[in-house]
Amino acid sequence: MSAKKPFRPKARRPRGFEDRSGSILRVERHLIERASRVYDDWGFEPLMTPAFEYADALGKFLPDEERPNEGVFALEDDDGQWLSLRYDHTAPLARFVAENYQDLNKPYRRYQAGDVWRNEKPGPGRFRQFVQCDADTVGAASAAADAEMIALAAEVMRSVGLKDGDYVVRVNDRRLLDGVLESIGAAEPERRMRVLRAADKLDRLGRDGVAMLLGEGRKDESGDFTEGAKLDTASIDRVLAFLDASGGSREDVIARLEPLVGTSETGKAGIAALSEIHDVLSAIGVNEDRALFDPSVVRGLGYYTGPVYEAELLAQATYDDGSPIQFGSVGGGGRYDDLVSRFTGQVVPATGFSFGVSRFAAALSALGLTGASQERPLVVVVAAEKDRSADYLSMAAELREAGFRAEAFVGGGNMGKQMKYADRRGAVAAVIVGSNEREEGLVTIKDLKLGARLAADISDNKQWREEQPAQETVARQDWIEAVERIAARND
Amino acid sequence: MSAKKPFRPKARRPRGFEDRSGSILRVERHLIERASRVYDDWGFEPLMTPAFEYADALGKFLPDEERPNEGVFALEDDDGQWLSLRYDHTAPLARFVAENYQDLNKPYRRYQAGDVWRNEKPGPGRFRQFVQCDADTVGAASAAADAEMIALAAEVMRSVGLKDGDYVVRVNDRRLLDGVLESIGAAEPERRMRVLRAADKLDRLGRDGVAMLLGEGRKDESGDFTEGAKLDTASIDRVLAFLDASGGSREDVIARLEPLVGTSETGKAGIAALSEIHDVLSAIGVNEDRALFDPSVVRGLGYYTGPVYEAELLAQATYDDGSPIQFGSVGGGGRYDDLVSRFTGQVVPATGFSFGVSRFAAALSALGLTGASQERPLVVVVAAEKDRSADYLSMAAELREAGFRAEAFVGGGNMGKQMKYADRRGAVAAVIVGSNEREEGLVTIKDLKLGARLAADISDNKQWREEQPAQETVARQDWIEAVERIAARND
Repeated sequence: MSAKKPFRPKARRPRGFEDRSGSILRVERHLIERASRVYDDWGFEPLMTPAFEYADALGKFLPDEERPNEGVFALEDDDGQWLSLRYDHTAPLARFVAENYQDLNKPYRRYQAGDVWRNEKPGPGRFRQFVQCDADTVGAASAAADAEMIALAAEVMRSVGLKDGDYVVRVNDRRLLDGVLESIGAAEPERRMRVLRAADKLDRLGRDGVAMLLGEGRKDESGDFTEGAKLDTASIDRVLAFLDASGGSREDVIARLEPLVGTSETGKAGIAALSEIHDVLSAIGVNEDRALFDPSVVRGLGYYTGPVYEAELLAQATYDDGSPIQFGSVGGGGRYDDLVSRFTGQVVPATGFSFGVSRFAAALSALGLTGASQERPLVVVVAAEKDRSADYLSMAAELREAGFRAEAFVGGGNMGKQMKYADRRGAVAAVIVGSNEREEGLVTIKDLKLGARLAADISDNKQWREEQPAQETVARQDWIEAVERIAARND
Repeated sequence: MSAKKPFRPKARRPRGFEDRSGSILRVERHLIERASRVYDDWGFEPLMTPAFEYADALGKFLPDEERPNEGVFALEDDDGQWLSLRYDHTAPLARFVAENYQDLNKPYRRYQAGDVWRNEKPGPGRFRQFVQCDADTVGAASAAADAEMIALAAEVMRSVGLKDGDYVVRVNDRRLLDGVLESIGAAEPERRMRVLRAADKLDRLGRDGVAMLLGEGRKDESGDFTEGAKLDTASIDRVLAFLDASGGSREDVIARLEPLVGTSETGKAGIAALSEIHDVLSAIGVNEDRALFDPSVVRGLGYYTGPVYEAELLAQATYDDGSPIQFGSVGGGGRYDDLVSRFTGQVVPATGFSFGVSRFAAALSALGLTGASQERPLVVVVAAEKDRSADYLSMAAELREAGFRAEAFVGGGNMGKQMKYADRRGAVAAVIVGSNEREEGLVTIKDLKLGARLAADISDNKQWREEQPAQETVARQDWIEAVERIAARND
């Protein structure tokens, strides 16, 4: 026999994918639990479609080559059909609704939280797998259904602990800008796309830059020239007035928009939708501080067919260096009425909302809104004597009875290593019963947070070892109380 | 321009995959939430590895052909590396631990719930994607860590509402049977595998069938002959005595096993592990009714290196036709000490437990253990008048304030259609404010459950319409109370 060296693969995470763990994962779970609770309360049903759809049903491409197009992870099944991993929760919903249309109780209201995959070039903070949480109402044409989606988004923001004023849902209707374009005679598709792309750059280029893109065009810093939409001055002013029309009450915004859309039927339909949305939101107590009208919301205007909305975090937080964190948008949605038609030809009205869970959870974490489970303190029972595991595990069980997260150390290693373990786990206290304590009916408890603070100041190691200022030894019957005292002072 | 007919894909779920929805999905979520809470309490950290691993790191195969082997979904990344979807949570954990070994605080205790994929031939109740929920302790060699896993499994069963006695964790140690085989001189690999396979058939073939497979061999009903392990009669009796050694207290089982493993060091190590597991379980209050020793637990004996465990439901339930449902195993686990060695050569002791979430949730659902969120009743506010959506959505908000799940109907359709909708949604009540009610300050509430019961008995449609026995009309200020009364009588 030849002494062949065994193959040892290199342990490495696939390119563009994350391992998520610990506190951020708890925040994500907290967010999904709260959102699900809200959706349940509002009469939505959970749905979980499989990770795969047939490539043709997913709709981004048709596989006519061995390797399907970019953007989607796809593979060939053993019966020759191509399977693709879902890139959002809307396309699978469309397939589900089309497949079960006769049996579904309509309007069909569902929510779904789960992973989606994009086969894209990964970048900083951009991953090829991430979590989205969606709610949709399928089979309801009224603006009341849109208003409910907006209210739901606001309610989810509130349910995770955000104060009113720390978030807002910005609402627009894609028919409004179309109305403006119709009323200035600039509705042909190519020009419309140029206007939309210009409007989308308001944040980045400012009013003057957008004005150039609406007119003849604009040369950027590198010297590249972008051709403009070739509107005349009056039309440019009108589009800019439209984009500027936010501010004040929802009624104020409607009043400013009405003259701008003029007599266009499309524009008037947009105004009517905003009016109904305003009425419903007011009736159910969602006021301007939680949902406002903002005609500069452009995102997805090409995809959606009516109202569009974007959920934004306004709360302030800072990085460790003191610079402010810009949270921005954590979700969005709108009305898309051609959900099912690509399968059946039948037009089915639908409206939905999607949260980017990872992004939203990162923001909540930075704001300290991490949910209750995060805050229960951890206590580690040290394995001071070999062969006493049963005692230590039993003490951990007692701690859990008292409401702590608790574990007994089950690995190997001396006291120093175990203390380091407890520290790194973020435990508030370490509990020690060595042979001395056991024989005398005592328990020693180390305050790990106080210990860390004192250790930072200490210069004399010998004095530290002798005084052990951050630990106390108590009678066995008092030990849980002592741990509670330590946890309370570190709260 | 040619009038080309648009391509319409057929809406169909991929072969072997499920759409899960409604109540079963809520039970799955309830199960995962409760299990996560238990793992959190016991000091485990959540981890979520990506769906993909590099094919070579996943370990089931090496892709040397265009289509990798069966059993795993795999695709080629654009840099030529093969990616595979995880088929369990253990292989990705191995990769994660090997990749981050220096930085991990050990023992590393993590839990993970999520989808896994198997590229297998689908069958009834067997899907190509399903949910598993795992907990593992990596870097702990002691049987105390195994005992903790067993206690955790029992605690999860209890946390979802199962009564003690309605579930049990069966514990064995693979070294025990090896000890028996050593002591009868039958430890060579091929014979050992024959014995293991024979032992695994105890349920199906009974004692006599297994005895034949341990001896010369057995001819099955079709006439096929399976060659036996060729043990002599005394050895066969010893193996059967081993498989029969369960029953009574954990100490009783240990006492029966000790003489059977004889002087084998392997067998004695198994006895020592069971003894320590018994001590720990007793110390933390996990008694024989929750975790027992059963030498006939064979599952996974080839894979695991020490203690093995299986979680079984004992609760009784029946199908609609009265026949009993056999739930059986809903999870299992054990010690596997070569987790990381295939990457680094380094032996890292580990022990873990995995629940099959879909299977477990189906059982809980059959037992009516569906979690609290399931039980809050749904109320539907009917859209009796057009253009009154704001009022109806506001009433739904009032119902939610009172603790109901509630929605206002936002689709189109007459009263009959809306009532049918509310019925099919499982609502307890439908709330109606038509023009009459509105003008007189009244609210009509239909008791949908009572209505359904009465409708089954009624023969006179006219009388039904006149008397409307299942509905009442109350003053506006009393309506929430009336809904509460109806919900209470349908509880």
